[in-house]
Amino acid sequence: MDTRAIGMFDSGVGGMTVYKEVKKAFPKQKIVYLGDTARFPYGSKSKETIIEITRKGIEFLIQKNVKLIIIACGTATSQALEKVKNSYPIPIIGIIEPTVQYIKESHLRKIGVIATHGTIRSNAWEQELKKKIENIEVQNKACPLLAPMAEEGFIDNEIAKLTIHEYLKDLKNIDGLILGCTHYPLFKPLIAKELGSHIEIINTGEKIVRKVKSILKEDTSSVKENVEDEIYLTDTECNFIEVVKKLLGKSEIIEIKKAIV
Amino acid sequence: MDTRAIGMFDSGVGGMTVYKEVKKAFPKQKIVYLGDTARFPYGSKSKETIIEITRKGIEFLIQKNVKLIIIACGTATSQALEKVKNSYPIPIIGIIEPTVQYIKESHLRKIGVIATHGTIRSNAWEQELKKKIENIEVQNKACPLLAPMAEEGFIDNEIAKLTIHEYLKDLKNIDGLILGCTHYPLFKPLIAKELGSHIEIINTGEKIVRKVKSILKEDTSSVKENVEDEIYLTDTECNFIEVVKKLLGKSEIIEIKKAIV
Repeated sequence: MDTRAIGMFDSGVGGMTVYKEVKKAFPKQKIVYLGDTARFPYGSKSKETIIEITRKGIEFLIQKNVKLIIIACGTATSQALEKVKNSYPIPIIGIIEPTVQYIKESHLRKIGVIATHGTIRSNAWEQELKKKIENIEVQNKACPLLAPMAEEGFIDNEIAKLTIHEYLKDLKNIDGLILGCTHYPLFKPLIAKELGSHIEIINTGEKIVRKVKSILKEDTSSVKENVEDEIYLTDTECNFIEVVKKLLGKSEIIEIKKAIV
Repeated sequence: MDTRAIGMFDSGVGGMTVYKEVKKAFPKQKIVYLGDTARFPYGSKSKETIIEITRKGIEFLIQKNVKLIIIACGTATSQALEKVKNSYPIPIIGIIEPTVQYIKESHLRKIGVIATHGTIRSNAWEQELKKKIENIEVQNKACPLLAPMAEEGFIDNEIAKLTIHEYLKDLKNIDGLILGCTHYPLFKPLIAKELGSHIEIINTGEKIVRKVKSILKEDTSSVKENVEDEIYLTDTECNFIEVVKKLLGKSEIIEIKKAIV
Protein backbone atom coordinates (compact mmCIF):
# COMPACT_ATOMS: atom_id res chain seq x y z
CA MET A 1 0.00 0.00 0.00
CA ASP A 2 1.31 3.38 -1.05
CA THR A 3 0.68 5.95 1.69
CA ARG A 4 2.20 8.85 -0.29
CA ALA A 5 -0.03 11.85 -0.98
CA ILE A 6 -1.78 12.89 -4.19
CA GLY A 7 -0.48 16.25 -5.47
CA MET A 8 -2.82 18.85 -6.93
CA PHE A 9 -1.92 22.02 -8.80
CA ASP A 10 -3.97 25.06 -9.83
CA SER A 11 -3.48 28.77 -10.50
CA GLY A 12 -5.46 29.61 -7.38
CA VAL A 13 -8.53 28.45 -5.52
CA GLY A 14 -10.26 26.79 -8.50
CA GLY A 15 -8.54 23.42 -8.09
CA MET A 16 -10.23 23.11 -4.71
CA THR A 17 -13.38 22.12 -6.61
CA VAL A 18 -11.39 19.08 -7.81
CA TYR A 19 -9.99 18.59 -4.29
CA LYS A 20 -13.58 18.40 -3.01
CA GLU A 21 -14.48 15.57 -5.43
CA VAL A 22 -11.26 13.61 -4.92
CA LYS A 23 -11.63 13.94 -1.14
CA LYS A 24 -15.22 12.70 -1.32
CA ALA A 25 -14.05 9.59 -3.22
CA PHE A 26 -10.85 8.99 -1.18
CA PRO A 27 -11.50 10.46 2.28
CA LYS A 28 -8.45 8.83 3.85
CA GLN A 29 -6.06 9.81 1.07
CA LYS A 30 -3.68 12.65 1.92
CA ILE A 31 -3.61 15.51 -0.60
CA VAL A 32 -0.91 18.16 -1.06
CA TYR A 33 -2.39 21.16 -2.89
CA LEU A 34 -0.47 23.99 -4.53
CA GLY A 35 -2.34 27.14 -5.59
CA ASP A 36 -0.18 29.54 -7.60
CA THR A 37 -2.04 32.63 -6.39
CA ALA A 38 1.02 34.85 -6.96
CA ARG A 39 0.81 34.24 -10.70
CA PHE A 40 -2.99 34.08 -11.02
CA PRO A 41 -4.65 34.42 -13.53
CA TYR A 42 -3.21 31.90 -15.99
CA GLY A 43 -5.99 32.47 -18.57
CA SER A 44 -4.29 35.48 -20.14
CA LYS A 45 -0.70 34.15 -20.07
CA SER A 46 1.28 32.82 -23.03
CA LYS A 47 1.67 29.09 -23.67
CA GLU A 48 5.42 29.28 -22.95
CA THR A 49 4.82 30.92 -19.58
CA ILE A 50 2.16 28.39 -18.63
CA ILE A 51 4.46 25.49 -19.50
CA GLU A 52 7.26 27.00 -17.40
CA ILE A 53 5.11 27.65 -14.33
CA THR A 54 3.34 24.31 -14.60
CA ARG A 55 6.76 22.61 -14.52
CA LYS A 56 7.64 24.60 -11.39
CA GLY A 57 4.40 23.51 -9.75
CA ILE A 58 4.97 19.86 -10.63
CA GLU A 59 8.54 19.96 -9.31
CA PHE A 60 7.37 21.51 -6.04
CA LEU A 61 4.83 18.70 -5.57
CA ILE A 62 7.34 15.99 -6.49
CA GLN A 63 9.61 17.34 -3.74
CA LYS A 64 6.67 16.77 -1.39
CA ASN A 65 6.87 13.08 -2.31
CA VAL A 66 3.51 12.66 -4.04
CA LYS A 67 2.63 9.51 -6.03
CA LEU A 68 0.37 11.17 -8.62
CA ILE A 69 -0.27 14.74 -9.72
CA ILE A 70 -3.59 16.17 -10.83
CA ILE A 71 -3.30 19.34 -12.91
CA ALA A 72 -6.51 20.76 -11.48
CA CYS A 73 -6.41 23.80 -13.76
CA GLY A 74 -8.09 24.09 -17.16
CA THR A 75 -5.53 26.46 -18.62
CA ALA A 76 -2.50 24.43 -17.48
CA THR A 77 -4.15 21.21 -18.71
CA SER A 78 -4.94 22.63 -22.14
CA GLN A 79 -1.64 24.42 -22.70
CA ALA A 80 1.02 22.50 -20.80
CA LEU A 81 -0.01 18.93 -19.87
CA GLU A 82 0.92 17.19 -23.14
CA LYS A 83 4.25 19.00 -23.23
CA VAL A 84 5.33 18.19 -19.67
CA LYS A 85 3.67 14.96 -18.52
CA ASN A 86 6.32 12.55 -19.80
CA SER A 87 9.24 14.38 -18.18
CA TYR A 88 8.52 13.09 -14.67
CA PRO A 89 8.59 9.66 -13.03
CA ILE A 90 4.99 9.73 -11.68
CA PRO A 91 1.59 9.88 -13.47
CA ILE A 92 0.35 13.40 -14.22
CA ILE A 93 -3.28 13.80 -15.23
CA GLY A 94 -5.38 16.77 -16.31
CA ILE A 95 -9.05 17.60 -16.47
CA ILE A 96 -9.71 17.14 -20.19
CA GLU A 97 -9.23 13.45 -20.97
CA PRO A 98 -11.39 11.99 -18.14
CA THR A 99 -14.20 14.42 -19.01
CA VAL A 100 -14.08 13.62 -22.72
CA GLN A 101 -14.20 9.90 -21.86
CA TYR A 102 -17.30 10.51 -19.74
CA ILE A 103 -19.03 12.42 -22.57
CA LYS A 104 -18.13 9.67 -25.06
CA GLU A 105 -19.95 7.13 -22.88
CA SER A 106 -22.94 9.43 -22.37
CA HIS A 107 -25.75 10.49 -24.75
CA LEU A 108 -24.46 14.08 -24.88
CA ARG A 109 -23.49 15.26 -28.37
CA LYS A 110 -24.13 19.03 -28.37
CA ILE A 111 -21.56 20.40 -26.04
CA GLY A 112 -20.86 23.94 -24.83
CA VAL A 113 -17.40 24.65 -23.42
CA ILE A 114 -16.77 27.63 -21.16
CA ALA A 115 -13.21 28.41 -20.08
CA THR A 116 -10.51 31.09 -19.90
CA HIS A 117 -9.26 32.93 -22.99
CA GLY A 118 -6.10 30.78 -22.99
CA THR A 119 -8.00 27.50 -22.93
CA ILE A 120 -10.51 28.54 -25.59
CA ARG A 121 -7.74 29.83 -27.87
CA SER A 122 -5.80 26.57 -27.47
CA ASN A 123 -8.90 24.76 -28.81
CA ALA A 124 -7.81 21.78 -26.68
CA TRP A 125 -11.34 20.78 -25.61
CA GLU A 126 -12.82 20.89 -29.12
CA GLN A 127 -9.87 18.98 -30.61
CA GLU A 128 -10.04 16.22 -27.98
CA LEU A 129 -13.85 15.96 -28.19
CA LYS A 130 -13.80 15.71 -31.99
CA LYS A 131 -10.88 13.28 -32.00
CA LYS A 132 -12.60 10.87 -29.61
CA ILE A 133 -16.30 11.26 -30.42
CA GLU A 134 -18.07 11.10 -33.79
CA ASN A 135 -20.82 13.55 -34.70
CA ILE A 136 -20.18 15.86 -31.79
CA GLU A 137 -21.00 19.58 -32.01
CA VAL A 138 -18.99 22.02 -29.91
CA GLN A 139 -19.68 25.67 -29.04
CA ASN A 140 -16.89 27.55 -27.24
CA LYS A 141 -17.22 30.63 -25.06
CA ALA A 142 -14.37 32.39 -23.25
CA CYS A 143 -15.44 33.79 -19.87
CA PRO A 144 -12.36 35.75 -18.73
CA LEU A 145 -14.05 37.43 -15.75
CA LEU A 146 -15.27 34.30 -13.99
CA ALA A 147 -11.99 32.99 -12.53
CA PRO A 148 -10.99 36.45 -11.21
CA MET A 149 -14.48 36.76 -9.70
CA ALA A 150 -14.09 33.40 -7.95
CA GLU A 151 -10.70 34.48 -6.54
CA GLU A 152 -12.43 37.63 -5.21
CA GLY A 153 -15.14 35.53 -3.57
CA PHE A 154 -17.86 36.91 -5.86
CA ILE A 155 -19.49 33.50 -6.42
CA ASP A 156 -23.02 33.93 -5.17
CA ASN A 157 -23.84 37.62 -5.51
CA GLU A 158 -25.80 39.61 -8.07
CA ILE A 159 -22.57 40.53 -9.94
CA ALA A 160 -21.79 36.85 -10.50
CA LYS A 161 -25.40 36.14 -11.55
CA LEU A 162 -25.46 38.92 -14.16
CA THR A 163 -22.00 38.01 -15.49
CA ILE A 164 -23.03 34.38 -15.95
CA HIS A 165 -26.16 35.49 -17.80
CA GLU A 166 -24.05 37.72 -20.06
CA TYR A 167 -21.60 34.91 -20.90
CA LEU A 168 -24.08 32.05 -21.32
CA LYS A 169 -26.88 33.79 -23.19
CA ASP A 170 -25.34 33.03 -26.61
CA LEU A 171 -24.96 29.27 -26.10
CA LYS A 172 -27.95 27.84 -27.95
CA ASN A 173 -29.19 24.31 -28.41
CA ILE A 174 -26.66 22.46 -26.24
CA ASP A 175 -27.34 19.39 -24.11
CA GLY A 176 -24.23 19.57 -21.94
CA LEU A 177 -21.93 22.34 -20.69
CA ILE A 178 -18.31 21.58 -19.77
CA LEU A 179 -16.98 23.79 -16.98
CA GLY A 180 -13.55 24.01 -18.62
CA CYS A 181 -11.95 25.95 -15.78
CA THR A 182 -11.84 24.46 -12.30
CA HIS A 183 -13.00 27.73 -10.79
CA TYR A 184 -16.38 27.43 -12.48
CA PRO A 185 -18.01 24.74 -10.29
CA LEU A 186 -18.04 27.48 -7.64
CA PHE A 187 -20.75 29.10 -9.77
CA LYS A 188 -22.64 25.84 -10.41
CA PRO A 189 -25.87 26.88 -8.63
CA LEU A 190 -26.02 30.12 -10.64
CA ILE A 191 -25.12 28.36 -13.91
CA ALA A 192 -27.82 25.71 -13.32
CA LYS A 193 -30.39 28.45 -12.71
CA GLU A 194 -29.35 30.24 -15.89
CA LEU A 195 -29.40 27.14 -18.13
CA GLY A 196 -32.33 25.20 -16.72
CA SER A 197 -32.39 21.55 -15.68
CA HIS A 198 -32.47 20.08 -19.21
CA ILE A 199 -28.77 20.90 -19.75
CA GLU A 200 -26.21 18.76 -17.94
CA ILE A 201 -23.46 20.73 -16.24
CA ILE A 202 -20.22 18.79 -16.39
CA ASN A 203 -17.87 19.26 -13.45
CA THR A 204 -14.42 18.02 -14.49
CA GLY A 205 -13.49 17.30 -10.86
CA GLU A 206 -16.20 14.62 -10.63
CA LYS A 207 -15.01 12.99 -13.84
CA ILE A 208 -11.37 12.85 -12.76
CA VAL A 209 -12.17 10.55 -9.84
CA ARG A 210 -12.53 7.44 -12.01
CA LYS A 211 -9.18 8.15 -13.64
CA VAL A 212 -7.55 8.53 -10.23
CA LYS A 213 -9.07 5.20 -9.13
CA SER A 214 -7.73 3.42 -12.21
CA ILE A 215 -4.23 4.75 -11.60
CA LEU A 216 -4.08 4.14 -7.87
CA LYS A 217 -5.68 0.69 -8.11
CA GLU A 218 -4.97 -0.16 -4.47
CA ASP A 219 -7.72 0.13 -1.90
CA THR A 220 -7.05 3.51 -0.36
CA SER A 221 -9.70 2.88 2.29
CA SER A 222 -6.92 1.31 4.33
CA VAL A 223 -4.82 4.48 4.35
CA LYS A 224 -4.34 5.86 7.85
CA GLU A 225 -7.05 7.86 9.62
CA ASN A 226 -6.87 11.57 10.47
CA VAL A 227 -5.22 12.58 7.27
CA GLU A 228 -3.83 16.09 7.39
CA ASP A 229 -3.80 17.60 3.96
CA GLU A 230 -1.27 20.30 3.15
CA ILE A 231 -2.30 23.43 1.29
CA TYR A 232 0.36 25.71 -0.15
CA LEU A 233 -0.16 29.07 -1.86
CA THR A 234 2.48 31.16 -3.59
CA ASP A 235 0.78 34.32 -2.32
CA THR A 236 -1.23 34.14 0.87
CA GLU A 237 -2.81 37.61 0.71
CA CYS A 238 -6.00 36.48 -0.97
CA ASN A 239 -9.55 35.29 -0.34
CA PHE A 240 -8.63 31.60 -0.54
CA ILE A 241 -9.95 30.57 2.87
CA GLU A 242 -13.18 32.51 2.48
CA VAL A 243 -13.91 30.89 -0.89
CA VAL A 244 -12.95 27.40 0.32
CA LYS A 245 -15.29 27.73 3.29
CA LYS A 246 -18.17 28.46 0.93
CA LEU A 247 -17.15 25.52 -1.27
CA LEU A 248 -16.58 22.90 1.39
CA GLY A 249 -19.11 24.23 3.88
CA LYS A 250 -16.48 23.98 6.58
CA SER A 251 -16.40 26.34 9.49
CA GLU A 252 -12.94 25.45 10.75
CA ILE A 253 -9.92 27.45 9.62
CA ILE A 254 -7.83 25.71 6.97
CA GLU A 255 -4.13 26.13 7.58
CA ILE A 256 -2.37 27.69 4.61
CA LYS A 257 1.38 27.51 4.09
CA LYS A 258 3.37 29.88 1.95
CA ALA A 259 5.23 28.24 -0.94
CA ILE A 260 8.06 29.76 -2.93
CA VAL A 261 7.87 28.16 -6.36
CA MET B 1 10.42 72.15 -33.69
CA ASP B 2 10.45 68.47 -32.85
CA THR B 3 7.94 66.59 -35.01
CA ARG B 4 8.64 63.22 -33.44
CA ALA B 5 5.72 61.39 -31.82
CA ILE B 6 4.85 60.97 -28.14
CA GLY B 7 4.95 57.31 -27.07
CA MET B 8 2.36 55.85 -24.72
CA PHE B 9 2.42 52.49 -23.01
CA ASP B 10 -0.25 50.51 -21.14
CA SER B 11 -1.17 46.90 -20.36
CA GLY B 12 -4.23 47.20 -22.58
CA VAL B 13 -6.96 49.67 -23.43
CA GLY B 14 -6.74 51.70 -20.19
CA GLY B 15 -4.01 54.05 -21.40
CA MET B 16 -6.40 55.27 -24.07
CA THR B 17 -8.04 57.38 -21.33
CA VAL B 18 -4.69 59.19 -21.08
CA TYR B 19 -4.45 59.28 -24.90
CA LYS B 20 -7.83 61.05 -24.95
CA GLU B 21 -6.62 63.82 -22.61
CA VAL B 22 -3.23 64.27 -24.29
CA LYS B 23 -4.92 64.38 -27.70
CA LYS B 24 -7.37 67.01 -26.46
CA ALA B 25 -4.46 69.20 -25.30
CA PHE B 26 -2.19 68.52 -28.31
CA PRO B 27 -4.48 67.72 -31.25
CA LYS B 28 -1.72 68.00 -33.85
CA GLN B 29 0.80 65.92 -31.95
CA LYS B 30 1.33 62.42 -33.29
CA ILE B 31 1.01 59.62 -30.71
CA VAL B 32 2.35 56.07 -30.93
CA TYR B 33 0.45 53.85 -28.50
CA LEU B 34 1.42 50.37 -27.34
CA GLY B 35 -1.14 48.24 -25.48
CA ASP B 36 0.35 45.02 -24.11
CA THR B 37 -2.92 43.09 -24.41
CA ALA B 38 -1.08 39.76 -24.70
CA ARG B 39 0.24 40.13 -21.14
CA PHE B 40 -2.80 41.86 -19.61
CA PRO B 41 -3.53 42.07 -16.67
CA TYR B 42 -0.46 43.57 -15.02
CA GLY B 43 -2.19 44.04 -11.63
CA SER B 44 -1.51 40.50 -10.47
CA LYS B 45 2.07 40.19 -11.79
CA SER B 46 5.28 40.36 -9.75
CA LYS B 47 7.37 43.53 -9.59
CA GLU B 48 10.23 41.83 -11.46
CA THR B 49 7.94 40.82 -14.32
CA ILE B 50 6.44 44.30 -14.56
CA ILE B 51 9.88 45.89 -14.71
CA GLU B 52 10.93 43.49 -17.47
CA ILE B 53 7.83 44.01 -19.60
CA THR B 54 7.82 47.78 -19.07
CA ARG B 55 11.40 47.87 -20.39
CA LYS B 56 10.28 45.92 -23.46
CA GLY B 57 7.45 48.38 -24.05
CA ILE B 58 9.76 51.38 -23.70
CA GLU B 59 12.30 49.88 -26.08
CA PHE B 60 9.59 49.19 -28.67
CA LEU B 61 8.47 52.83 -28.50
CA ILE B 62 12.04 54.16 -28.68
CA GLN B 63 12.49 52.18 -31.90
CA LYS B 64 9.47 54.09 -33.21
CA ASN B 65 11.49 57.29 -32.70
CA VAL B 66 9.37 58.96 -30.00
CA LYS B 67 10.60 62.05 -28.11
CA LEU B 68 8.85 61.33 -24.80
CA ILE B 69 7.17 58.28 -23.25
CA ILE B 70 4.12 58.30 -21.02
CA ILE B 71 3.72 55.18 -18.91
CA ALA B 72 -0.06 55.35 -19.09
CA CYS B 73 -0.50 52.40 -16.72
CA GLY B 74 -0.92 52.62 -12.95
CA THR B 75 0.72 49.29 -12.21
CA ALA B 76 3.77 49.92 -14.45
CA THR B 77 4.12 53.44 -13.01
CA SER B 78 3.98 52.26 -9.41
CA GLN B 79 6.20 49.20 -9.80
CA ALA B 80 8.64 49.97 -12.60
CA LEU B 81 8.97 53.67 -13.43
CA GLU B 82 11.56 54.66 -10.80
CA LYS B 83 13.64 51.60 -11.64
CA VAL B 84 13.73 52.12 -15.40
CA LYS B 85 13.31 55.81 -16.21
CA ASN B 86 16.97 56.78 -16.05
CA SER B 87 18.15 54.01 -18.38
CA TYR B 88 16.92 55.72 -21.55
CA PRO B 89 17.88 58.91 -23.42
CA ILE B 90 14.36 60.46 -23.52
CA PRO B 91 12.02 61.64 -20.73
CA ILE B 92 9.74 58.93 -19.33
CA ILE B 93 6.83 60.03 -17.16
CA GLY B 94 4.17 58.16 -15.22
CA ILE B 95 0.75 58.93 -13.80
CA ILE B 96 1.60 59.38 -10.12
CA GLU B 97 3.80 62.46 -9.85
CA PRO B 98 1.65 64.88 -11.93
CA THR B 99 -1.45 63.82 -9.99
CA VAL B 100 0.22 64.24 -6.59
CA GLN B 101 1.39 67.71 -7.68
CA TYR B 102 -2.21 68.61 -8.60
CA ILE B 103 -3.53 67.42 -5.23
CA LYS B 104 -0.81 69.35 -3.40
CA GLU B 105 -2.00 72.57 -5.05
CA SER B 106 -5.68 71.77 -4.38
CA HIS B 107 -7.71 71.84 -1.16
CA LEU B 108 -8.07 68.04 -1.17
CA ARG B 109 -6.59 66.31 1.90
CA LYS B 110 -8.71 63.19 2.43
CA ILE B 111 -7.87 61.01 -0.51
CA GLY B 112 -9.15 57.62 -1.58
CA VAL B 113 -6.99 55.61 -3.98
CA ILE B 114 -8.43 52.80 -6.08
CA ALA B 115 -6.10 50.66 -8.19
CA THR B 116 -4.99 47.12 -9.02
CA HIS B 117 -3.69 44.71 -6.37
CA GLY B 118 -0.13 45.33 -7.56
CA THR B 119 -0.37 49.09 -7.27
CA ILE B 120 -2.07 49.03 -3.86
CA ARG B 121 0.49 46.55 -2.51
CA SER B 122 3.36 48.71 -3.77
CA ASN B 123 1.94 51.55 -1.65
CA ALA B 124 3.40 53.95 -4.25
CA TRP B 125 0.48 56.41 -4.18
CA GLU B 126 0.33 56.69 -0.40
CA GLN B 127 4.11 57.09 -0.11
CA GLU B 128 4.26 59.82 -2.74
CA LEU B 129 1.21 61.65 -1.35
CA LYS B 130 2.61 61.61 2.20
CA LYS B 131 6.11 62.58 1.06
CA LYS B 132 4.87 65.64 -0.82
CA ILE B 133 1.84 66.79 1.19
CA GLU B 134 1.51 67.45 4.91
CA ASN B 135 -1.55 66.32 6.86
CA ILE B 136 -2.91 64.17 4.10
CA GLU B 137 -5.09 61.14 4.87
CA VAL B 138 -5.11 58.21 2.44
CA GLN B 139 -7.50 55.26 2.13
CA ASN B 140 -6.52 52.49 -0.32
CA LYS B 141 -8.80 49.99 -2.02
CA ALA B 142 -7.71 47.34 -4.51
CA CYS B 143 -10.32 46.75 -7.23
CA PRO B 144 -8.89 43.76 -9.15
CA LEU B 145 -11.99 43.15 -11.30
CA LEU B 146 -12.31 46.63 -12.80
CA ALA B 147 -9.47 46.54 -15.34
CA PRO B 148 -10.50 43.08 -16.65
CA MET B 149 -14.07 44.37 -16.91
CA ALA B 150 -12.92 47.36 -18.94
CA GLU B 151 -10.96 45.08 -21.29
CA GLU B 152 -14.17 43.04 -21.74
CA GLY B 153 -16.13 46.20 -22.56
CA PHE B 154 -18.26 45.93 -19.42
CA ILE B 155 -18.04 49.66 -18.62
CA ASP B 156 -21.62 50.84 -18.59
CA ASN B 157 -23.74 47.81 -17.74
CA GLU B 158 -25.37 46.64 -14.51
CA ILE B 159 -22.42 44.33 -13.74
CA ALA B 160 -20.03 47.30 -13.75
CA LYS B 161 -22.45 49.38 -11.64
CA LEU B 162 -22.79 46.69 -8.94
CA THR B 163 -19.05 45.98 -8.90
CA ILE B 164 -18.26 49.66 -8.41
CA HIS B 165 -20.75 49.84 -5.56
CA GLU B 166 -19.16 46.77 -3.95
CA TYR B 167 -15.65 48.23 -4.17
CA LEU B 168 -16.41 51.82 -3.19
CA LYS B 169 -18.89 51.31 -0.37
CA ASP B 170 -16.14 51.11 2.27
CA LEU B 171 -14.42 54.40 1.37
CA LYS B 172 -15.74 56.82 3.98
CA ASN B 173 -15.18 60.51 4.52
CA ILE B 174 -12.99 61.28 1.51
CA ASP B 175 -12.98 64.50 -0.51
CA GLY B 176 -11.12 63.18 -3.56
CA LEU B 177 -10.75 59.80 -5.26
CA ILE B 178 -7.68 59.02 -7.36
CA LEU B 179 -8.39 56.66 -10.25
CA GLY B 180 -5.03 54.90 -9.80
CA CYS B 181 -5.42 52.67 -12.85
CA THR B 182 -5.84 54.22 -16.28
CA HIS B 183 -8.69 51.84 -17.07
CA TYR B 184 -10.87 53.41 -14.40
CA PRO B 185 -11.86 56.69 -16.14
CA LEU B 186 -13.89 54.41 -18.42
CA PHE B 187 -16.17 53.94 -15.40
CA LYS B 188 -16.20 57.64 -14.44
CA PRO B 189 -19.96 58.16 -14.98
CA LEU B 190 -20.77 55.16 -12.78
CA ILE B 191 -18.21 56.15 -10.14
CA ALA B 192 -19.59 59.72 -10.02
CA LYS B 193 -23.10 58.38 -9.53
CA GLU B 194 -21.92 56.07 -6.74
CA LEU B 195 -19.92 58.73 -4.85
CA GLY B 196 -22.06 61.84 -5.38
CA SER B 197 -20.93 65.22 -6.65
CA HIS B 198 -19.22 66.34 -3.40
CA ILE B 199 -16.25 64.02 -4.03
CA GLU B 200 -13.78 65.01 -6.75
CA ILE B 201 -12.84 62.19 -9.07
CA ILE B 202 -9.23 62.58 -10.16
CA ASN B 203 -8.40 61.36 -13.66
CA THR B 204 -4.63 60.96 -13.89
CA GLY B 205 -4.73 61.47 -17.67
CA GLU B 206 -5.98 65.04 -17.22
CA LYS B 207 -3.22 65.80 -14.72
CA ILE B 208 -0.45 64.45 -16.92
CA VAL B 209 -1.12 67.08 -19.62
CA ARG B 210 0.59 69.90 -17.70
CA LYS B 211 3.65 67.73 -17.20
CA VAL B 212 3.78 66.93 -20.91
CA LYS B 213 3.53 70.66 -21.70
CA SER B 214 6.41 71.48 -19.37
CA ILE B 215 8.61 68.85 -21.00
CA LEU B 216 7.77 69.60 -24.61
CA LYS B 217 7.90 73.39 -24.15
CA GLU B 218 7.68 74.12 -27.86
CA ASP B 219 4.40 75.16 -29.45
CA THR B 220 3.05 71.94 -30.86
CA SER B 221 0.21 73.80 -32.56
CA SER B 222 2.57 74.18 -35.48
CA VAL B 223 3.03 70.44 -35.92
CA LYS B 224 1.69 69.20 -39.25
CA GLU B 225 -2.03 68.67 -39.86
CA ASN B 226 -3.73 65.30 -40.41
CA VAL B 227 -1.70 63.48 -37.85
CA GLU B 228 -2.03 59.72 -38.11
CA ASP B 229 -1.51 58.12 -34.77
CA GLU B 230 -0.23 54.56 -34.60
CA ILE B 231 -1.81 52.05 -32.28
CA TYR B 232 -0.03 48.76 -31.61
CA LEU B 233 -1.34 45.84 -29.57
CA THR B 234 0.60 42.72 -28.62
CA ASP B 235 -2.58 40.66 -29.03
CA THR B 236 -5.25 41.91 -31.38
CA GLU B 237 -7.99 39.41 -30.46
CA CYS B 238 -9.68 41.66 -27.93
CA ASN B 239 -12.36 44.28 -27.43
CA PHE B 240 -9.97 47.21 -27.85
CA ILE B 241 -11.79 48.94 -30.71
CA GLU B 242 -15.20 48.52 -29.14
CA VAL B 243 -14.03 50.05 -25.85
CA VAL B 244 -12.17 52.89 -27.58
CA LYS B 245 -15.26 53.77 -29.60
CA LYS B 246 -17.23 54.17 -26.38
CA LEU B 247 -14.40 56.22 -24.86
CA LEU B 248 -13.69 58.56 -27.75
CA GLY B 249 -17.21 58.62 -29.18
CA LYS B 250 -15.76 57.91 -32.61
CA SER B 251 -17.62 55.96 -35.18
CA GLU B 252 -14.73 55.39 -37.57
CA ILE B 253 -12.64 52.24 -37.33
CA ILE B 254 -9.29 52.73 -35.64
CA GLU B 255 -6.53 50.84 -37.37
CA ILE B 256 -4.71 48.47 -35.04
CA LYS B 257 -1.32 47.00 -35.79
CA LYS B 258 0.08 43.87 -34.23
CA ALA B 259 3.30 44.36 -32.25
CA ILE B 260 5.71 41.67 -31.18
CA VAL B 261 7.36 42.91 -28.02
